[in-house]
Amino acid sequence: MRVGGIEGGGTKFVCAIGTGPDDIEAEVRFPTTTPEETLRNAIEFFSSQERPVDRIGIASFGPLDLNPESPRFGFISQTPKVGWPNTDVRGTISRALDVPVWIDTDTNAPALAEHKWGALQGLDTCLYITVGTGIGGGGLVGGKLMHGLVHPEMGHMRIPHDKAVDPFEGACPFHKDCWEGLAAGPAIEARWKCRGENLPDEHPAWALEARYLAFALQNLILTLSPQRIVVGGGVMDRAHLFPMVRQEVVSLLNAYVRSPAILEGIDTLIVPPALGNRAGVLGGIALAQAELVGPVGLV
Amino acid sequence: MRVGGIEGGGTKFVCAIGTGPDDIEAEVRFPTTTPEETLRNAIEFFSSQERPVDRIGIASFGPLDLNPESPRFGFISQTPKVGWPNTDVRGTISRALDVPVWIDTDTNAPALAEHKWGALQGLDTCLYITVGTGIGGGGLVGGKLMHGLVHPEMGHMRIPHDKAVDPFEGACPFHKDCWEGLAAGPAIEARWKCRGENLPDEHPAWALEARYLAFALQNLILTLSPQRIVVGGGVMDRAHLFPMVRQEVVSLLNAYVRSPAILEGIDTLIVPPALGNRAGVLGGIALAQAELVGPVGLV
Repeated sequence: MRVGGIEGGGTKFVCAIGTGPDDIEAEVRFPTTTPEETLRNAIEFFSSQERPVDRIGIASFGPLDLNPESPRFGFISQTPKVGWPNTDVRGTISRALDVPVWIDTDTNAPALAEHKWGALQGLDTCLYITVGTGIGGGGLVGGKLMHGLVHPEMGHMRIPHDKAVDPFEGACPFHKDCWEGLAAGPAIEARWKCRGENLPDEHPAWALEARYLAFALQNLILTLSPQRIVVGGGVMDRAHLFPMVRQEVVSLLNAYVRSPAILEGIDTLIVPPALGNRAGVLGGIALAQAELVGPVGLV
Repeated sequence: MRVGGIEGGGTKFVCAIGTGPDDIEAEVRFPTTTPEETLRNAIEFFSSQERPVDRIGIASFGPLDLNPESPRFGFISQTPKVGWPNTDVRGTISRALDVPVWIDTDTNAPALAEHKWGALQGLDTCLYITVGTGIGGGGLVGGKLMHGLVHPEMGHMRIPHDKAVDPFEGACPFHKDCWEGLAAGPAIEARWKCRGENLPDEHPAWALEARYLAFALQNLILTLSPQRIVVGGGVMDRAHLFPMVRQEVVSLLNAYVRSPAILEGIDTLIVPPALGNRAGVLGGIALAQAELVGPVGLV
């Protein structure tokens, strides 16, 4: 079976054909512009290959309608991204290439890729968090990708914000000082008037960032009891954040959850992605490869 | 098949035999004292019946070891409750009565009962939260009870706490102003120097309580995307809290999650328990009845 993967991001699309991280035979990247042009570029990539693909999986930005009984299944529903609300991503690709297409969020699909090939192998309850221009999260619970009423939007959870320490009001257009509003890349830049990558390791920005990340990761640990959390995204390229975040999480939990995985094993509980920035497109491939799935792309 | 259920709470135990909420043939309640006396009382109830039970399910306070591969599977692990750490609840009952015993938390088991007979029927991702002397939560995700590394301890998540509005420092011995530390019954009493049940409906305590509950429920909605959340426990006997909490949740989410279930259906998204305070012992019965389970009591 020949499988294609698409990472449909808000700023760029990546399309690839292959079977896994060590076997990608073709790949293309292009910027996300209008839905028409962007999806046409994706279709042209696959249709210009010598041999057609049998299936495609898409890791898409959202929010998505993932209810297989909905007439808008596989659509991007509402999004502030101009032109993209109500775009039938799945149907457009599927009809143009005449192949079955699986779709899931740009956090669930990378979680599946990390589960199949990366840092989440063998675990049944595990999360993939991305901290970049926004914050998002997905994962598997009890061995199944997280869906529910819609799908998780973890980046918008509320966390403590001590305005005496950090008077920045928050950058989220919906909630101001939710997790994303306090800790995503744009929040760092707006607070410190400097892009995060230009702030030195010893800048106080990072202790504050680690604390906000730790508040949210602690909430996820208490809510879902994950066996491991992968934290990726551009902000986490600052590797010195990992030990700071882990220490804060242990400190905040204060030995309430008496699991050795937390008390002694925090270094392997909160980890960077093993697949780096390829988890998205590999997530698309993993979705399309998933065995025993219905037409909905659920595992 | 004749099934018994046990609600093992921190203050009282309830044991029952029956098939569901409308068919309980025998029931007993007694206070939780030492593990020896309390478990002996439970064993005597079942062994004094004319006919033995074939299976028992236990909804137990915790934290519990629910890893079926652990030598301490079915033990209460650590608990501040004197005498109870390292108590083999499941094994003690199972050996004394020579029956298979299923065990899960005192929030997962009630979630299963509400799923089988109550407010969560037909849903695959749904939560049961209890707000009483503590705050806890469990539920089903993708049709399976929530486990993971340990089990959820949602009551200890961190939420915003504006000390200018509410200078109370919080009552949780581990985290001070976590959700439980701000919003469980003892926090209400410590803050207002008055037990919650003696505070009139128009007292400002309730607007503050609704806000703390809404912060946490909003976080659960964003993290898990549940199709419904049952909120029970002694504090929620104040029915006027429900409309206040629902309104706060909608206001906090600020139309970010554009699901009709939230925008128009919040009255059926956040609901009181249908089984009232019987969800615990019925949860034990539901655990023992569960089909296709292994020796671990997972569904």
